[in-house]
Amino acid sequence: MGSYEEQFARDYQAVEAALPGYLPQGDTLQKTVQEAMAYSLLGGGKRIRAVLCLVFCRLCGGTTEEAMPFACAIEMVHAYSLIHDDLPCMDDDDLRRGKPSCHVRYGEAMAVLAGDGLLTLGFETMLGQYYTGRYPPQRVVKAAAELARAIGTGGMVGGQVIDIQHEGKPITGEALNLLHSLKTGSLIRASARIGCIIAGASDDIIAKADSYAKNLGLAFQITDDLLDVTSTPEALGKPIDSDQENGKTTYATLYGVEKSRQIVKELVLEADLAIKGSVLDDPFLYQLADRLAQRDR
Amino acid sequence: MGSYEEQFARDYQAVEAALPGYLPQGDTLQKTVQEAMAYSLLGGGKRIRAVLCLVFCRLCGGTTEEAMPFACAIEMVHAYSLIHDDLPCMDDDDLRRGKPSCHVRYGEAMAVLAGDGLLTLGFETMLGQYYTGRYPPQRVVKAAAELARAIGTGGMVGGQVIDIQHEGKPITGEALNLLHSLKTGSLIRASARIGCIIAGASDDIIAKADSYAKNLGLAFQITDDLLDVTSTPEALGKPIDSDQENGKTTYATLYGVEKSRQIVKELVLEADLAIKGSVLDDPFLYQLADRLAQRDR
Repeated sequence: MGSYEEQFARDYQAVEAALPGYLPQGDTLQKTVQEAMAYSLLGGGKRIRAVLCLVFCRLCGGTTEEAMPFACAIEMVHAYSLIHDDLPCMDDDDLRRGKPSCHVRYGEAMAVLAGDGLLTLGFETMLGQYYTGRYPPQRVVKAAAELARAIGTGGMVGGQVIDIQHEGKPITGEALNLLHSLKTGSLIRASARIGCIIAGASDDIIAKADSYAKNLGLAFQITDDLLDVTSTPEALGKPIDSDQENGKTTYATLYGVEKSRQIVKELVLEADLAIKGSVLDDPFLYQLADRLAQRDR
Repeated sequence: MGSYEEQFARDYQAVEAALPGYLPQGDTLQKTVQEAMAYSLLGGGKRIRAVLCLVFCRLCGGTTEEAMPFACAIEMVHAYSLIHDDLPCMDDDDLRRGKPSCHVRYGEAMAVLAGDGLLTLGFETMLGQYYTGRYPPQRVVKAAAELARAIGTGGMVGGQVIDIQHEGKPITGEALNLLHSLKTGSLIRASARIGCIIAGASDDIIAKADSYAKNLGLAFQITDDLLDVTSTPEALGKPIDSDQENGKTTYATLYGVEKSRQIVKELVLEADLAIKGSVLDDPFLYQLADRLAQRDR
């Protein structure tokens, strides 16, 4: 499979190459919303979720090709969540990945609709795989059900609700954990789980993948918080210290930088432990956890 | 089955009784968004889409109970669309069914999230039926795929895009037809189709149901436009002449009241023709089309 960097680059590029093909095209009356969807979906991003989906599918005996539509659907849902989170009535962020946010570029109405469109397209892309005849229907329905469960009020939307309601207010460590486990953790876990499901993995293996992704997701989020205080605007592509300015409690403000780094290390160890000795025991996953926790943007 | 009124009231009440049970409950951190979702989902509404789903399922040999989770999921998606349509950046409507709109009552952020939450819950509710073991997986995945196809940029969202982009601008009869067939028609057609799918109906029967619902949906929408100029605020529960004030082209402004009424009559005849002589040939459906076209609110 080559080095970690080679494998990540290969999967990343495969996702980048596949994504545009799933976007609606060609209807002149829908041109603006289609552009807004493409702008946000194709505007960069680490593709962690998609790569997790591909990797777990392969480790469970499936192929990159089988996982790809599901991996792309997950990226659509992730893109929708960023568009709606950036809206003026939400986090009111004008910049995303160093570019104007969707609503700054296309207006609020089109941003709401582009988000709605991408969320729906995520489900349409997954569920449409049924008609290819290439998947047992059970796997398609289970994958889509995992997605739905991960992103509703019991998942991603629920995390954003907690986030919005605590803006400028103190938050306990417990509530902060819940916020992150819902807002970013749920979809990261679903990405790993869906990869396994597409390959027809057992519940036992899905549970191991879930545990890995759960710890990875939290480590990823804490690192995000840390970068907001320790990175530079150039490296991040957005202003630093924005959390503090918005009065947000983060791991960095709650525990300090050193203790937060320690928590990240422990989470990476937990992630490693979850896959050790199983079919998921693969150098790539150990390295992925390490790198995500040590990234500088 | 009793008279048309009795049957409609029975189905309507069954839907009203079932809906609350599908809403998330009990998590104190999610209390506000759960209230906002309940406020919009349970705040009245004609339940045409849900009733269509139930009726078509029964006519194809299924039961009310089998269709109910799918019918309720469709109502969730309909409620989401109304919440997002009413937002200040969209149609900016402060009133919905005689009550403050969701964003007026709960604020914009919570309204966006309640909409996102209801859309997702619609899919979660449908797809979760797989785990009950009561449905062939194919039917669940086909029903959810129908929903996704009906509400994306090739359907409901696409209709709203056309609507937003033509606000205050002239629109051709052709574009107006497309707008309505996407914005309201798609979900009404999906409601009928999903009812058939749950009962395991053939493609031929699904096509007849689709044709009925397509004509019904357009008749319904034109009647909506007509009511905006011919009804009273008391009967409608919202201001009249709002379309004209917003500079919207409607069937009423494009063709005049008389010609529009004629078009509605023809559409009802087309709807009737679609089901005539088939398993769907049922007095209730003829009456439903008649009543929707002649309603005063």
